[in-house]
Amino acid sequence: MTSPVRLALLGCGTVGGEVVRLLHEQSTDLAARIGAPLELAGIAVRRLGRDRGELPVDPAIFTTDPLGLIKRDDVDVVVEVVGGIEPARGWLVEALRAGKSVVTANKALLAEDGGALHDAAAEGGADLYYEAAVAGAIPLLRPLRESLHGDRITQVTGIVNGTTNFILSAMDATGAGFAEALEEATELGYAEADPTADVEGFDAAAKAAILASLAFHTRVNAADVHREGITEVTAADVASAKAMGCTIKLLCIAARGVDTAGRETVNVRVHPAMIPLTHPLAGVGDAFNAVFVEAEAAGQLMFYGRGAGGAPTASAVLGDVVAVARNRLAGVRAASESAYADLSVRPMGEALTRYHVSLDVADRPGVLAAVAGVFARHDVSIATVRQGPAEGSTPGSGTDADLVIVTHVAPDAALAATVSELRGLEMVRSVTSVLRVEGGV
Amino acid sequence: MTSPVRLALLGCGTVGGEVVRLLHEQSTDLAARIGAPLELAGIAVRRLGRDRGELPVDPAIFTTDPLGLIKRDDVDVVVEVVGGIEPARGWLVEALRAGKSVVTANKALLAEDGGALHDAAAEGGADLYYEAAVAGAIPLLRPLRESLHGDRITQVTGIVNGTTNFILSAMDATGAGFAEALEEATELGYAEADPTADVEGFDAAAKAAILASLAFHTRVNAADVHREGITEVTAADVASAKAMGCTIKLLCIAARGVDTAGRETVNVRVHPAMIPLTHPLAGVGDAFNAVFVEAEAAGQLMFYGRGAGGAPTASAVLGDVVAVARNRLAGVRAASESAYADLSVRPMGEALTRYHVSLDVADRPGVLAAVAGVFARHDVSIATVRQGPAEGSTPGSGTDADLVIVTHVAPDAALAATVSELRGLEMVRSVTSVLRVEGGV
Repeated sequence: MTSPVRLALLGCGTVGGEVVRLLHEQSTDLAARIGAPLELAGIAVRRLGRDRGELPVDPAIFTTDPLGLIKRDDVDVVVEVVGGIEPARGWLVEALRAGKSVVTANKALLAEDGGALHDAAAEGGADLYYEAAVAGAIPLLRPLRESLHGDRITQVTGIVNGTTNFILSAMDATGAGFAEALEEATELGYAEADPTADVEGFDAAAKAAILASLAFHTRVNAADVHREGITEVTAADVASAKAMGCTIKLLCIAARGVDTAGRETVNVRVHPAMIPLTHPLAGVGDAFNAVFVEAEAAGQLMFYGRGAGGAPTASAVLGDVVAVARNRLAGVRAASESAYADLSVRPMGEALTRYHVSLDVADRPGVLAAVAGVFARHDVSIATVRQGPAEGSTPGSGTDADLVIVTHVAPDAALAATVSELRGLEMVRSVTSVLRVEGGV
Repeated sequence: MTSPVRLALLGCGTVGGEVVRLLHEQSTDLAARIGAPLELAGIAVRRLGRDRGELPVDPAIFTTDPLGLIKRDDVDVVVEVVGGIEPARGWLVEALRAGKSVVTANKALLAEDGGALHDAAAEGGADLYYEAAVAGAIPLLRPLRESLHGDRITQVTGIVNGTTNFILSAMDATGAGFAEALEEATELGYAEADPTADVEGFDAAAKAAILASLAFHTRVNAADVHREGITEVTAADVASAKAMGCTIKLLCIAARGVDTAGRETVNVRVHPAMIPLTHPLAGVGDAFNAVFVEAEAAGQLMFYGRGAGGAPTASAVLGDVVAVARNRLAGVRAASESAYADLSVRPMGEALTRYHVSLDVADRPGVLAAVAGVFARHDVSIATVRQGPAEGSTPGSGTDADLVIVTHVAPDAALAATVSELRGLEMVRSVTSVLRVEGGV
């Protein structure tokens, strides 16, 4: 039998524990798939004494010295499931430079400074795999990095945060407001005590940066991503969406575009949006994730599955471990991440989007003309208008009316300026809902 | 610049023409992704004179001698989009043995004799890629072959034939019968003049064999697949499914099991089945394809996209071309197809399935007892029963009643024997609908 491929595991929380269990349970299958057994050389943790349940591993391999473990001559592959920027960045750069393959689930680090890791991997001639960093167990890295290499991806639209999808699904199902739905998510363990990273879109923005980099062969960092969370989505917004045959999802969108000078750009953003119920992403409920890809030749593709959780994440980590172990045995390195396209990032104001705007207006002559005039002044074309009596008011009574306008595609800045001017219009009592519209309503 | 990787294209129909166009349009991007340009060395066709539209290629590279083209020293990669068992098998075996990488979309050949191709690839140390053979542009090969390598797949359930999915979707939407829906599909170009391969499930069975081999690391041929088409699905079946909150799909299913001796087996089958509307596969409409994968750690995954068409298939072919071209430049070979598991195929009679049975029975005492007795004699447990007056009859009038029974899981042979005995029962006027039930109703 070939000599084993030896792993260093950094971190032993929920995901790390599952990795240890799967390595043990699947050891025969893994060895058959790789052509050599996998062996756990050491596990670096912060504290040795912590209760980690019953792990099928010799307690003597635990250590509190990650760097020492990484540098050991008998370690071939480093698996990092600690998360966070530092000290993980230092460890992984060290490992990659030393020629050790790295498998990581660290989306924050990849989105913040993926370039440093890719550079270190190139320098050390080592593999860097990170399937678990985006959308948990859903295979995306290989489809985007390899399967679609003969094609040209035009847009990637994803539901990549389970917590916010659970909250929005609950709001849609029950008519609850954001606060109430968040409370339910927290009780059921879908939201953390401090839900900021999820509900404000930071988690989705990190994943958006990684997806955009992969899909467009360029480098996008988290700071390049326009980000809006779901805390301001109201029950009224959800009701507006339903009336349009839509549902609201927190989407991460990475889209190709062309700037005024004719150069190719990429716009990457995270925000809530209305999508039609007939769109494949509309049916993605609860805490599931899905990524919808549009490519010139392949057309529409969608990848669906669990985006988080110990076992799904560990499955993705182990898939990568098998790949890097095979590469080591073959004495090769995977095709390195190509960032040849080097697209510039288009600011949100220039991105082309569509708006759905609900207004509570005075019910009197000239209102529609005035409102339509505001759109025209900003060069925004109106797709549909629906006007009716406001809830509880009598038509023609001269009180209030509801006005719902959906625009055609326009630069986001023009749309935002339109809404801002509408808010200042005397005959507009209030702007009851503003939402972007995606997915071809 | 590195010297080019040179391709031989066998076949220049719809898919081949798209491959030629994409090679031309994407040439700069492809060269950047590979690290060397791709060059079309020759195109083998049956007849030189045929009108192939405007192809961006020198007419002098067309030839009617495929074997001569394959054997040329300056050909590195062979792309086959001809289809059929012979002469394609001979060409590809020849190419692989000579160490040339092969990219093929030939599902019939892979399902009939994939072993011969894999053996030839191992012998010649060459790559064999076939993403385009199953579900067109949907990336499945790499997710199943690589991403889920650290996991254990338990079942693969797919909608892999666009023609039958279009027909069943139309029957569901309009209440039409099979013949009428087939006619519509033919008019719209979704069904061929002779639709046998699609509607009788032969095409789906070939794809099922390939999917099962990939998912379970074993060899399954088309002959191992239990196959039933959709020609006997009636408007009444569709109505029964709707009444249950279900829809009917032609599914290909590859499931792990254990035989009576405790050995692991695989059961592979293609047949129409009821699935609940809440199942992710239920929303896959028109001619789209999707593959639903269940794995122990990853949980539920789904892959969705276009299963056929020139451009989607060409996209999958080119993704493979990039991969094999990179491997050649790196001087390596992809991990070979592992068939280490060598699972035996479980016959359909032993497969565990569930049945939905609608009966038209005499409305008199003792009927339910007699019917239930038949299920009990075959050791089939009943999950739900619904009895009501038959359409148009008066309750208690002693005429007819409708009896709908859904079973728990049982061996398929026991279920089939139950239905057969029910047909012979005097008080059963007719068995109006028999359908398997999948996806956890």
